[in-house]
Amino acid sequence: MANEVILLDFWPSMFGMRTRIALREKGVEFEYREEDLRNKSPLLLQMNPVHKKIPVLIHNGKSVNESIIQVQYIDEVWSHKNPLLPSDPYLKAQARFWADFIDKKMDDAQRKVWATKGEEQEAGKKEFIEILKTLETELGDKPYFAGDDFGYVDIALIGYYTWFPAYEKYGNFSIESECPKLIAWAKKCLERETVAKSLPDPEKVIGFVSELRKRFGLE
Amino acid sequence: MANEVILLDFWPSMFGMRTRIALREKGVEFEYREEDLRNKSPLLLQMNPVHKKIPVLIHNGKSVNESIIQVQYIDEVWSHKNPLLPSDPYLKAQARFWADFIDKKMDDAQRKVWATKGEEQEAGKKEFIEILKTLETELGDKPYFAGDDFGYVDIALIGYYTWFPAYEKYGNFSIESECPKLIAWAKKCLERETVAKSLPDPEKVIGFVSELRKRFGLE
Repeated sequence: MANEVILLDFWPSMFGMRTRIALREKGVEFEYREEDLRNKSPLLLQMNPVHKKIPVLIHNGKSVNESIIQVQYIDEVWSHKNPLLPSDPYLKAQARFWADFIDKKMDDAQRKVWATKGEEQEAGKKEFIEILKTLETELGDKPYFAGDDFGYVDIALIGYYTWFPAYEKYGNFSIESECPKLIAWAKKCLERETVAKSLPDPEKVIGFVSELRKRFGLE
Repeated sequence: MANEVILLDFWPSMFGMRTRIALREKGVEFEYREEDLRNKSPLLLQMNPVHKKIPVLIHNGKSVNESIIQVQYIDEVWSHKNPLLPSDPYLKAQARFWADFIDKKMDDAQRKVWATKGEEQEAGKKEFIEILKTLETELGDKPYFAGDDFGYVDIALIGYYTWFPAYEKYGNFSIESECPKLIAWAKKCLERETVAKSLPDPEKVIGFVSELRKRFGLE
């Protein structure tokens, strides 16, 4: 069967980045379609009627939604190459646990770092660093979260790295001085072409965040 | 290898109920250990140091956390019997999507129904019914969410049903008149011994919720 793969996405989305990386890890050709989130396409609304959010993965006309579910789907459909999840059930559960931890904790905390001020921002920065330190402890001295091979948890987390300079600028703190091992891990991930091609320029993200801050009345 | 399975749980938890049902669907013998959430056991803190929450599944000394991850783990380890997730990647992604929808939406909304008052409670009731109606639409005329066989999404949702009488009592509304098909589905699920054995008496849940409301100063 011919594989027609379309990805409805928005360039600064760390969730979209996961799906881009997973597709590239598997060598899947796909059509990338940029969405205007203030004027969503009829296709987006039709393909993700419940959440109406990007990324939407459309494979031969059928949609799969939620980035972390898309990554698992991609791993299962294109199972011939670069497994993203371990095959052992226990290791798989551990990988799912950490991706879930990232999904439950990171989004709120990172938003507080750049979209609030005063006490709320200070609390957000503290929370954000604590989350990263927990992840750094889990990483330990391994090259990647699952060990020697790049995979699921790396994909779940790496998109945030391209936002780090924006967090540092608007949060006025240094992530590297707090979490040097995590930064070394991120740099290693970026050596992969699949990752480098999927993450936007951090300077462009700073510009995007600055626009949002103006809209929120913070600048 | 001998299978030693211990479940650290708390009887009114709809999350714990998922894991109980999944283990029973697979015919796995397990030791149920009730936790006192105001005085958590050293074993709980050791086995789930990140979230410090029940349910904790301990299989041959190793822990798996987060109920929805436990259900997947159980399905993968005891794969010989009663598959809980479909094998087709697309159907699997759909099942994961709906379990994720339940996890993202239900908990907040149900809490507003019984743990708040006034406008917040009214908004919570409206939100809660909308979530149930979305689920009812997805269920359609199928006996179970995946079709003819009881499975993953049913397990993710059914625990809430035992809380429905408490929601109705303290929210002063009728769920059945809004979502009759969903109630018929729940009654059908309860015909399964694995479910009936895993869900507590709704009257006992009402008593538990009443205690919480007193503690929150609502009664």
